[in-house]
Amino acid sequence: MRHAILQVSSPTHQALVPITREVERMLPELELDDGILHLFVRHTTCGLTINENADPDVARDLIRRLEKLVPWHDADDRHMEGNTAAHLRAALMGTSLSVPVQQGKLHLGTWQGIYLTEFDGPRTRHVQLTALTAAE
Amino acid sequence: MRHAILQVSSPTHQALVPITREVERMLPELELDDGILHLFVRHTTCGLTINENADPDVARDLIRRLEKLVPWHDADDRHMEGNTAAHLRAALMGTSLSVPVQQGKLHLGTWQGIYLTEFDGPRTRHVQLTALTAAE
Amino acid sequence: MRHAILQVSSPTHQALVPITREVERMLPELELDDGILHLFVRHTTCGLTINENADPDVARDLIRRLEKLVPWHDADDRHMEGNTAAHLRAALMGTSLSVPVQQGKLHLGTWQGIYLTEFDGPRTRHVQLTALTAAE
Repeated sequence: MRHAILQVSSPTHQALVPITREVERMLPELELDDGILHLFVRHTTCGLTINENADPDVARDLIRRLEKLVPWHDADDRHMEGNTAAHLRAALMGTSLSVPVQQGKLHLGTWQGIYLTEFDGPRTRHVQLTALTAAE
Repeated sequence: MRHAILQVSSPTHQALVPITREVERMLPELELDDGILHLFVRHTTCGLTINENADPDVARDLIRRLEKLVPWHDADDRHMEGNTAAHLRAALMGTSLSVPVQQGKLHLGTWQGIYLTEFDGPRTRHVQLTALTAAE
Repeated sequence: MRHAILQVSSPTHQALVPITREVERMLPELELDDGILHLFVRHTTCGLTINENADPDVARDLIRRLEKLVPWHDADDRHMEGNTAAHLRAALMGTSLSVPVQQGKLHLGTWQGIYLTEFDGPRTRHVQLTALTAAE
């Protein structure tokens, strides 16, 4: 099993949805012991990031800071759907992410957690997981 | 064939240049059926991103939003070439990108397209493609 | 040898610390001739980026531009440690980076260098290196 899909439901219009535990649970299915786990969202108004997993205020601060950095309304936007801000915020966070795996576990730092960054929810999102083995 | 180079001509000083079709055409040459395609620009004033492929206004909005976010002129810049803004915009988009490949095709979402993000063109740019097979 | 760790000491509160030479020195140990080198920081207030290696003013400009883009103080921040700005700047740069390797050498462009982007130093940081071979 080389690929797997994780389904994520974002609860609100904007959210950093923690997915570390869900991703970890899929590692046995992916049979990845040693290498890199690649995560990819197949969407254009959400992204992926790794950030602090201990104090939930960090995630809340990040959302609010991104709102200020990239305001929802901009008089010059032409995109008819009106969600250009979500597209840019998603691009700033990035569509893919990759994490070292050692001995079948995500090799994250103590304070690191993986988040799906929702910028135009609530929606059901899909994260594509791909297992890449390290060079032998 | 493990590596390939895609040449991209950016038409203007700033542009999101769509390259999905060009990348797809190179997959057979790379002999990648199942895994991850890695894209890397060997430049410091352009980047790569994945975003909406349907409404071209999204790409135009993103360029204009990035211009506002990172203004071209900043009185404190010291870099003699005067294009610090291009360097930062490129860093925000990122130098590399990686996309799942399944059955010889880019496994992009319906609305996703790959773009070279030019911030100091027009120029001829090179994107390095590398094929990584998924774990068996 | 598939994994290796590079220790990096950041000299100041904020800095772009060049690590290209240090990374190159570890390639023989990783026995990577042809593929992708994956770099990952196991921290949430620093990141990784690739940018201009020739004029050191670019790195200085980038730091100062990021300070303006994401100010250290924001009255709405709730994170008790008071370093939300460092978390966001790190997220904008990214936690991981990947670079093509050919014939045992980093296949960087002429003007590209790899940097650890410190946003809450000085600290000792660890960069996890993983070797991924290209498809044969």
